[in-house]
Amino acid sequence: MKENENKIKVEKNKSAAEVLESYPELKKNAVAIKYNETLKDLNEKLDKTTVVEVITTDSDEALDILRHSASHIMAQAVKDLYPNVQIGIGPATKDGFYYDFDVENPFTPEDLEKIEKRMEEIIKADKPFKHLLLPRKEVLKKFKDMNEMLKVELISEKTADDEEISLYEHDNFVDFCRGPHIPSTGRVPVVKLLSTGGAYWKGDERNKMLQRIYGTAFFKKESLNNYLEYLEEVKKRDHRKLGPQLDLYQIYEEAGSGLIFWHPYGATVRTIVEDFWKNVHTERGYRLIITPHIAHNELWKTSGHWDYYRENMYTIPTERGEYVLKPMNCPFHILIYQSKLRSFRDLPLRYCELGTVYRYERQGVLHGMLRVRGFTQDDAHIFCTPEQVEDEILSCLDIARYFFGVFGFKDYQIELSVRDTNEKEKYMGTDEMWDHAEKALVTALEKFQVDYSKQEGEAVFYGPKIDIKLVDAIGNTWQATTIQFDFNLPERFDINYIGSDSKEHRIIMIHRAMLGSLERFIGTLIEHYGGAFPIWFAPVQVVVIPISEKTHDYANSVMNRLVDAGLRAELDKRSEKMNYKIREAQDNKIPFMFIIGPREADAKSVSVRHRFLGDIGVVNLDDAISLLQNLDKQKIISFEDEWDDFEGSLAEWIKANKY
Amino acid sequence: MKENENKIKVEKNKSAAEVLESYPELKKNAVAIKYNETLKDLNEKLDKTTVVEVITTDSDEALDILRHSASHIMAQAVKDLYPNVQIGIGPATKDGFYYDFDVENPFTPEDLEKIEKRMEEIIKADKPFKHLLLPRKEVLKKFKDMNEMLKVELISEKTADDEEISLYEHDNFVDFCRGPHIPSTGRVPVVKLLSTGGAYWKGDERNKMLQRIYGTAFFKKESLNNYLEYLEEVKKRDHRKLGPQLDLYQIYEEAGSGLIFWHPYGATVRTIVEDFWKNVHTERGYRLIITPHIAHNELWKTSGHWDYYRENMYTIPTERGEYVLKPMNCPFHILIYQSKLRSFRDLPLRYCELGTVYRYERQGVLHGMLRVRGFTQDDAHIFCTPEQVEDEILSCLDIARYFFGVFGFKDYQIELSVRDTNEKEKYMGTDEMWDHAEKALVTALEKFQVDYSKQEGEAVFYGPKIDIKLVDAIGNTWQATTIQFDFNLPERFDINYIGSDSKEHRIIMIHRAMLGSLERFIGTLIEHYGGAFPIWFAPVQVVVIPISEKTHDYANSVMNRLVDAGLRAELDKRSEKMNYKIREAQDNKIPFMFIIGPREADAKSVSVRHRFLGDIGVVNLDDAISLLQNLDKQKIISFEDEWDDFEGSLAEWIKANKY
Repeated sequence: MKENENKIKVEKNKSAAEVLESYPELKKNAVAIKYNETLKDLNEKLDKTTVVEVITTDSDEALDILRHSASHIMAQAVKDLYPNVQIGIGPATKDGFYYDFDVENPFTPEDLEKIEKRMEEIIKADKPFKHLLLPRKEVLKKFKDMNEMLKVELISEKTADDEEISLYEHDNFVDFCRGPHIPSTGRVPVVKLLSTGGAYWKGDERNKMLQRIYGTAFFKKESLNNYLEYLEEVKKRDHRKLGPQLDLYQIYEEAGSGLIFWHPYGATVRTIVEDFWKNVHTERGYRLIITPHIAHNELWKTSGHWDYYRENMYTIPTERGEYVLKPMNCPFHILIYQSKLRSFRDLPLRYCELGTVYRYERQGVLHGMLRVRGFTQDDAHIFCTPEQVEDEILSCLDIARYFFGVFGFKDYQIELSVRDTNEKEKYMGTDEMWDHAEKALVTALEKFQVDYSKQEGEAVFYGPKIDIKLVDAIGNTWQATTIQFDFNLPERFDINYIGSDSKEHRIIMIHRAMLGSLERFIGTLIEHYGGAFPIWFAPVQVVVIPISEKTHDYANSVMNRLVDAGLRAELDKRSEKMNYKIREAQDNKIPFMFIIGPREADAKSVSVRHRFLGDIGVVNLDDAISLLQNLDKQKIISFEDEWDDFEGSLAEWIKANKY
Repeated sequence: MKENENKIKVEKNKSAAEVLESYPELKKNAVAIKYNETLKDLNEKLDKTTVVEVITTDSDEALDILRHSASHIMAQAVKDLYPNVQIGIGPATKDGFYYDFDVENPFTPEDLEKIEKRMEEIIKADKPFKHLLLPRKEVLKKFKDMNEMLKVELISEKTADDEEISLYEHDNFVDFCRGPHIPSTGRVPVVKLLSTGGAYWKGDERNKMLQRIYGTAFFKKESLNNYLEYLEEVKKRDHRKLGPQLDLYQIYEEAGSGLIFWHPYGATVRTIVEDFWKNVHTERGYRLIITPHIAHNELWKTSGHWDYYRENMYTIPTERGEYVLKPMNCPFHILIYQSKLRSFRDLPLRYCELGTVYRYERQGVLHGMLRVRGFTQDDAHIFCTPEQVEDEILSCLDIARYFFGVFGFKDYQIELSVRDTNEKEKYMGTDEMWDHAEKALVTALEKFQVDYSKQEGEAVFYGPKIDIKLVDAIGNTWQATTIQFDFNLPERFDINYIGSDSKEHRIIMIHRAMLGSLERFIGTLIEHYGGAFPIWFAPVQVVVIPISEKTHDYANSVMNRLVDAGLRAELDKRSEKMNYKIREAQDNKIPFMFIIGPREADAKSVSVRHRFLGDIGVVNLDDAISLLQNLDKQKIISFEDEWDDFEGSLAEWIKANKY
């Protein structure tokens, strides 16, 4: 449908709905109109004659309106079934809608079924959504009379005495709401309730816990099915489930929320990532440092964090004043920079540290490894001259791209955050500094030949930055890289270098993290791969499975060979059946299995099985080991990708490829 | 001198001094006697006729007595020169003696010279030491009259009302003292004052700061010279001086005392040690874990640390109760052990972690990297069955010996600490547990064929242990390894496994650290090597020195080759003179220098220089790189050791050794 086909002319005091009677095709898909950049009901009478855009079912805006209306229908259904429930708020969200209810007991799955059934009845009855504008006093009385005290609270807070209050009414249900809505309840083709959970009233921990019901709605059944499939996939990949299931990590509430305990397999993955990270950085001229986790609060007073970040800092009272558990590494890196007089000849100085920091986050926002209270930043600070800035940014982008490739992320989104030049007073630093820094970022991005979006006014007060978000296998995005100018700390700590003119100059300081934090990045890897890590960072690369006790000796020698070859191997000598052991290895997402029967023992070979490809033939042991070593060393992400090149038996392929 | 030659018979009411008149040779060297296992003055009249041992100048006991007497002489000298000074205490120490004085201003080096001069006069006057026993009242009055109020305080605290007080008097000086002493001041052949510093009265921070003068005394001038040489060597190797000088680490008082900031070179050494440690452990069946730095205090209440270790713990008040900065890793390892039901088939389970812990130590005891407030233990906990204990201990000893060898410690001292069976009530656990554990430790030590000393009553309350102390290049000892049974935590946390009988059994838990902490161990390495680390863990292995700008291109290519070869290299392109650069590289203790002039550039060779051996010839670049790689890979501790095997030019040697 072309843009113009959706525009119609509406006379003063008429509604779009009336005009649409003459456009039966358009009417079928019409949901609302856009008038003066604002969405309005189809039934809204306009106060002047004008051309308006009709919002149709193929747009995101229509989906939002549909879901918002569905949330009203759900609230009605709940009130019809449980008249004593008080209603909270019920907006549309990115993927659906929810409504919060003040109810004694949580809703059960059976309740949800009942509510969904009642919603279908309301939809079938096809009751119109009516927009009312009433005096505030009358509205407050109305809700008081209905005993909807949460609504009374909300209206009292959000509106002024003399305001007319916007309500939407359908059937026997009325809500405090700006709209717009679909014309009638019958216009909801597909609705589905999904889950329920607790939520604090107005999102504040100090308030009462309400019960939230999540649902979604679509214009097409097929879209719902796709969405449910996606949800299934998200659930399967959820690192909070896979992490403990694969024994990668666990959170022990008795020790504290938001604190990650890395179990052996998880610690192995983390150590591989760390070692690789250190190599990449030292090869590229970064200098590794290690700093303490605590410091006297004076340091944080100098940095300014004590004033504006204090509520997120863990503080430690001692006999000799208050200490702080570091929420960031910067002041420590600055101390090391300042331990000597630095000349332009020493620059750029790039200090990198895998620094574990602690930030007090509210209980409600914690989320597995992705939102935690303790995390290890892959942090670095670059101290350089203005002339060196562009090369440094370019080098950061290059490292980031290298990391993404080697960890198997094909897609990512780059955001450049610059200041709002209309509100210069909000930012630290001179025009010259901002212009120079923003120009360096843009030039580097352009030299780097990548797409990026520029976000005006999104820079933090102390400097512009680049953020990079990873896109995972099912299209979710995850914050990873930040490259951030800091015009603030060099001033506060008075950080300088001696220029070629023998005079003191203010240093340029750039914070940067490539992966973000090890916790979040490895959480992202778990979801991206659904726990089935590529061989190079899989905690166990191969499990040796003797089919009976008779081959235990040979299995031991295979195991020793694998360990000597530097591979991460396990030996499963339990007296379980072979198929049971194989199933368990597959459940544990171990890339390879070497299965050993008497024939393999005699021939000094192994029967190779891959977690996705299944049996791939008998190979002599030397070749099998070489194969794994090569996949490991070359950091092959997807064995299946390689597989496409291969025809015939694995043994032939290995031979042909000189593995 | 044979044992019996030192025994003499003394009649009742006579002194050894009187008897010794008949043994002029023995008299010359006699310092005191041992009577009933107690040291007594030569002039003491005995209360029965008996044979006593004469303590002569060749014994450690004589040295102690000499130094104690020297401290009295020093106190007299100070009082003679500065009559208003009050005296504190003045014992002999391992290497000398000290005395503390309450004085307004610290002593200057000039003061020390004056005091030493006055001591020489007192010694020359050869005044006898007299032992007095006086009523307490009279003694208190005596010291009050002299305005020695510190002594009055000490006597009041340390003695009972009806006691006779032991004093020693010589010349015009009298002190509250048990003795014994040398017969007269003239018997001090060699004395030397060394240094001065502040010390709290009775070692308590809350008390007044006194001024302490350190000195030493010997029977022979030669011994003093050896000792002064040793002190010179200690000073040269002091990690507190070398650490910052070689830019390995620094402590920033503004951030906090006792907190180590690892600068790039130090962090490099630490990372090499860490990586090596992780490999050794995973190869030997340890499983790496990583745990947080904080946890809710409940965990420490369960462990018992909250009750008996609280004053050393940093606590963090939060909205959700009090947290603790972990002072040890054990409870965290236990949580992971307990995350699953464990069977005897899963055992032994060995969790290892480079875990950074924080302990609040008093300001006064902090000492560089050796005594700190934050340190990283190379920690592990072994969970096993009683049958597995002996093999586990043996394996720990084996790892320790391997580490010591590869880090170049040829000598170490092993201590076995067992319980005092006369005070069984002081210890946790049954007789059976103690007997089993102590037997396992002894058997392992014997199988391991090493000398060890057994220390009765030195075990901690929760189990017996083995400690290993490293002996460094100049004979100092440093605590490293601990292998420690714990009968306490398995009870408190109720830690079990399912045995082959399908019943629950209490686990055996062993704490162990091989190096102790990375801070202390690397501090020890600095002192052991005087900062000149072996090539395999030297932060910079080779520095490339072009002799002029003409060879910069070739120097760059040499540098790239070295980096590609995985060597830690630096390139010194400054426009300084070659000799200046060489001197600086030597000062920085860099093992090798590759010096490059036009001839080397033409021949694709380098002129190799070693930090200790000086110039060792021109070698082609490939051979020079192979040489360094091999020394690195083989973890050669002392290049000089290797050197002994070599005759002829380096090039020939390299050829012969196929480097």
